[in-house]
Amino acid sequence: MDTIARLKRDLVIANRILAQQNVLDAYGHVSMRHPHDPGKYFLARSISPAIVEESDIIEFHLDGNPVDGNEERPLYLERFIHGSVYERRADVKAALHSHAEDILPFTISKSVRLRPVIHATGDMGSNIPVWDMAEKFGDSTTLLVTNMAHGRDLAACLDCNRMALMRGHGFVFAGRTINDLVRICVYIPRNARVQLNAMRMGDFIALSQGEIDARMALDPDAPAMKRGWEFWAKEAGVGHLLED
Amino acid sequence: MDTIARLKRDLVIANRILAQQNVLDAYGHVSMRHPHDPGKYFLARSISPAIVEESDIIEFHLDGNPVDGNEERPLYLERFIHGSVYERRADVKAALHSHAEDILPFTISKSVRLRPVIHATGDMGSNIPVWDMAEKFGDSTTLLVTNMAHGRDLAACLDCNRMALMRGHGFVFAGRTINDLVRICVYIPRNARVQLNAMRMGDFIALSQGEIDARMALDPDAPAMKRGWEFWAKEAGVGHLLED
Amino acid sequence: MDTIARLKRDLVIANRILAQQNVLDAYGHVSMRHPHDPGKYFLARSISPAIVEESDIIEFHLDGNPVDGNEERPLYLERFIHGSVYERRADVKAALHSHAEDILPFTISKSVRLRPVIHATGDMGSNIPVWDMAEKFGDSTTLLVTNMAHGRDLAACLDCNRMALMRGHGFVFAGRTINDLVRICVYIPRNARVQLNAMRMGDFIALSQGEIDARMALDPDAPAMKRGWEFWAKEAGVGHLLED
Amino acid sequence: MDTIARLKRDLVIANRILAQQNVLDAYGHVSMRHPHDPGKYFLARSISPAIVEESDIIEFHLDGNPVDGNEERPLYLERFIHGSVYERRADVKAALHSHAEDILPFTISKSVRLRPVIHATGDMGSNIPVWDMAEKFGDSTTLLVTNMAHGRDLAACLDCNRMALMRGHGFVFAGRTINDLVRICVYIPRNARVQLNAMRMGDFIALSQGEIDARMALDPDAPAMKRGWEFWAKEAGVGHLLED
Repeated sequence: MDTIARLKRDLVIANRILAQQNVLDAYGHVSMRHPHDPGKYFLARSISPAIVEESDIIEFHLDGNPVDGNEERPLYLERFIHGSVYERRADVKAALHSHAEDILPFTISKSVRLRPVIHATGDMGSNIPVWDMAEKFGDSTTLLVTNMAHGRDLAACLDCNRMALMRGHGFVFAGRTINDLVRICVYIPRNARVQLNAMRMGDFIALSQGEIDARMALDPDAPAMKRGWEFWAKEAGVGHLLED
Repeated sequence: MDTIARLKRDLVIANRILAQQNVLDAYGHVSMRHPHDPGKYFLARSISPAIVEESDIIEFHLDGNPVDGNEERPLYLERFIHGSVYERRADVKAALHSHAEDILPFTISKSVRLRPVIHATGDMGSNIPVWDMAEKFGDSTTLLVTNMAHGRDLAACLDCNRMALMRGHGFVFAGRTINDLVRICVYIPRNARVQLNAMRMGDFIALSQGEIDARMALDPDAPAMKRGWEFWAKEAGVGHLLED
Repeated sequence: MDTIARLKRDLVIANRILAQQNVLDAYGHVSMRHPHDPGKYFLARSISPAIVEESDIIEFHLDGNPVDGNEERPLYLERFIHGSVYERRADVKAALHSHAEDILPFTISKSVRLRPVIHATGDMGSNIPVWDMAEKFGDSTTLLVTNMAHGRDLAACLDCNRMALMRGHGFVFAGRTINDLVRICVYIPRNARVQLNAMRMGDFIALSQGEIDARMALDPDAPAMKRGWEFWAKEAGVGHLLED
Repeated sequence: MDTIARLKRDLVIANRILAQQNVLDAYGHVSMRHPHDPGKYFLARSISPAIVEESDIIEFHLDGNPVDGNEERPLYLERFIHGSVYERRADVKAALHSHAEDILPFTISKSVRLRPVIHATGDMGSNIPVWDMAEKFGDSTTLLVTNMAHGRDLAACLDCNRMALMRGHGFVFAGRTINDLVRICVYIPRNARVQLNAMRMGDFIALSQGEIDARMALDPDAPAMKRGWEFWAKEAGVGHLLED
C-alpha cells in the first residue's frame, strides 16, 4: 500500500476512534500533514468524524485551499486551525480541534489551569495556555477560527507546548504522530475529570516536571503506546483498516 | 414530496434525534408550526419520542384541540405549552418541552442562573428566566401545564428570549426552524454541565452580549449548522427519512 | 390470560426495565403481592434482574419460605425485605430493594436528606428516613437483611411514607401498583442527582407539601403514567410481554 | 476439563468482565496464580483486556519471565506488579492492576483517603494506602512499574490489606479467588463515586471495623457472591466460557 493510501486509512481510523471515544462528536476535526510535502495536509470534507471514509479525505495547502481547486464541497469552516499549526511548528505531523466536554470548564475558569495529573497524559505538556479570541479580535466574534489571522494567533500559543485551550469553545492539540495524538487525546478528558474531582476534595498532586519529561521521552509509537490504537480501531468498527 | 409530508418526516427526525441524544426520554415532546396556517401546529399523539412515526403526527389548533376532532387517541397532557408559544410568538416555527436532567438543577437553584458559556449555545440567548408555576397558580399544583391559562403564563416568559426554565420540571425552547431548535437543544445540557463544573472551580467567563448577538446572526440552517442534523439522524436510525 | 400468568409477565417486565434503567444491576430485586392472597408474594429465584424469565418467578409466604417447599434453588438472601413490607402495609402491592448508585450518598450523609425536587418524583413522599441497621443490630453486621427481625425493623420505617434509605446499602420502595413503583423508581436516581447538583450551587427549592399531595392524588395507572412502562419495556427487549 | 484449562477460561472471563464493567480499558491487566506451583502465574500477552482469548494467556515465573522462554511476543511492561504481589503474599490467588478513572482522584488527593462506604466493598479492607513511586525512585520516573524493584516496593504496601492506590496512575488489588477479585473490583469505582458525592454534602459514615470484618468473613465464592460473575460474563459475551 502506498504512503498516501496508508495515511488516508490512518486518518479515517483516527476520526472513528476519536468519535467513538467521545473526543469528537458531530463537530470537531483531525488532520495529518503530507508526509512528503510539509506545505500540505489532509483533512476530511465537512462531515461528522464518526462517518468519515477514505473518499472524504481532501488534500489542502496550508492556507486552507484545497489542492485540487474544487470549490463545490462544503469544507470545515475552522480548517484554518490545522494549516496554522503546521505552518508554525515544523515538528508537528497531526493536529486536532475538539470540543470535548470535560475540557470546556477549564477553558472558562478564571482561577484554575488544566494540568497533567495522570501518567497517561504526562506527555500533554506542563504548560497549557488558554487562548481567548476576544483579546485580539474583540468581544463580538462568533468564537470560530475562520481565517488564517485567527489561526495564526491561536497557533502562536503552541510555541513551547503541544496543547492550547480555546475559551468557551474547545482545544487544539499538536501530535508528533497520529497515534501519539489519538492516544493522548483519548485520555485528556479523563485527566480533566480526575483533576476536577480531586480538587473537590482539597489540594492535589500534579505530575512533576521530571515525570512529564520522562513521559515525553518515551517513543510515542512503541508497541505499548499502540495497544490503544489497535483496540480502539476494533471498537470503532474499523479494525479492517489496520491491515495494509 | 409535498410540504406537509416533508414536515412530518422532519418532525419524526427531530423526535428521534432528541431522544437519542437524551434531551427527551420516555416523556417530553417537540412540535412544528403549520407552514401555511400559523393557527395550527403538528405534534405526536401521547407516545415516547424515541418511537414516534409519521402516522403518529396529529394536526392541532393552537388551543390544543385536534383539527380532525378525533377524541379517542390519548394526547400529551401538556400540549398546551406548544399552542401558547406559537400564539405569543409569530416568529417561532418549532417548540420543545423537555425534562433534560442537567437543566433541572438550574430550575430549582435559588442563587444561580443558567447562562451561555460555550459557543455552540451562544444563540440560546442571554436571558433565561425561571418560570415558577406556584407564583400564579399556587403551591398545590401537579406542576403540569394542562390548560391554556397555564401555557399562556409560561409563554409570557419568552417575550425577549427563546428559552424558559420551569421550576422542578424542565424547560421550553422556541426555535426559528426545527434544525435550529434541535442543534441548540442537543447542546443545552452540555452547556449546563460545563457551567456547573466551571463553578466548582471558582469564577467563570460566560459569552459576552456581542458574542451572543454574533451567534444569533448566523444562518441557523447553513451547511455547518446542519451537519449535526444529518449525522444525528443516522445515529438515531432515521437517516432514510432525510431523503425526499 | 389468567391473573397469575399476567402478574408473572408484569414482574418480568419490571425486572427487565429496572435493570435496563440502572435501578437494579447484578443485584437487587423486585416483587409483587399475590392478587388474591395477601399472605403471599412473587419474587424471582436468586438471579440477576436483567435475565429473569417467567419460569424464575417463585411464590413465597410472607415469612420468606417458598410455597412449594422446594429448598433446592438458591434464593435471594434478602427476600425478607419483601415479606416484611407486605406484612406491615396492607396497601402495598409491589416492593423493590435496590442499590442504585446515586441514592447511596444520601444513605451515608450525616447532614443532608433526600427530598423530592422534580415533578416526576413528587409521589415518592415528603419524608424519606434513613434506616441504620447498626442502631438495633449492632455495628458488626454484614449490613444484609437476612431474616424477618431485620426486615420488620426496616419495614417499620415505612409507616407514614413509601421509601426508606438503608445506610451504606441502598433503599426500599413500596408501590401501590407495579407500574407506580417502576415509574417512580426510574426517576428516583435522577431526583438524587438533581438535588446533589443543585446543592453545589447553593440553596434549592424542593416540592411543597401541596405539590407532593397533588402528585400523590394522581391515578398511578393513568395513560400518561403508563407511557414510560410501555416504552421502557420495548427498550428492555420485552415489548412482546406487554400483550396478553 | 483440566485445572489449567479451567483457570485459563476463568482468566479470560475476568478480563472480559473487568473491561465490560469499565474497571479496565485499553490498558490494565489481571492475573491468576498457578494452582499447583505458587512460583508461577498466568497473565495475557500485551493486549487489551476486552479482546483477550485463551490462546493469549502465558505462564510466567514470579520474576516476570515467561516459562516457555519465548521472547518474541510483546509483554505487559508492568507485569512485575503481579509477580511481586504473589511473592509477598502467599494467600493471594489473583491480582489486578487498573487505571479505573474514579479511583484516580483519590490517588492524587493530599487530604482524603478512600474508605469502604458501601456494603459491597466492605471487604476491600479498612486501610488503603497510597504508594507514591517518587518516594523511593525519585521524581523523574515514567510512573510505570517496569522491574521487580519497583514491584516489590509497591507490594510491600499490601502487608496488612488487599489494595494499594498508585499516585497519578491507578491501583493494585489482591484477591483470595478470581471471583472475589472481580466482584469487589467492579464495585470499587462505585464506592469511590459514592464517597466523593457524599463528601460534597458534608460528613459521611464509613463502614465500621466490625462491619468490615463481618464482610471479610463471608465465603467469597458463596452462591450470592457468584451471582455477579455469572451475569457479568453473559453481559460481556463470554457466558459460554462458564461451562466446563
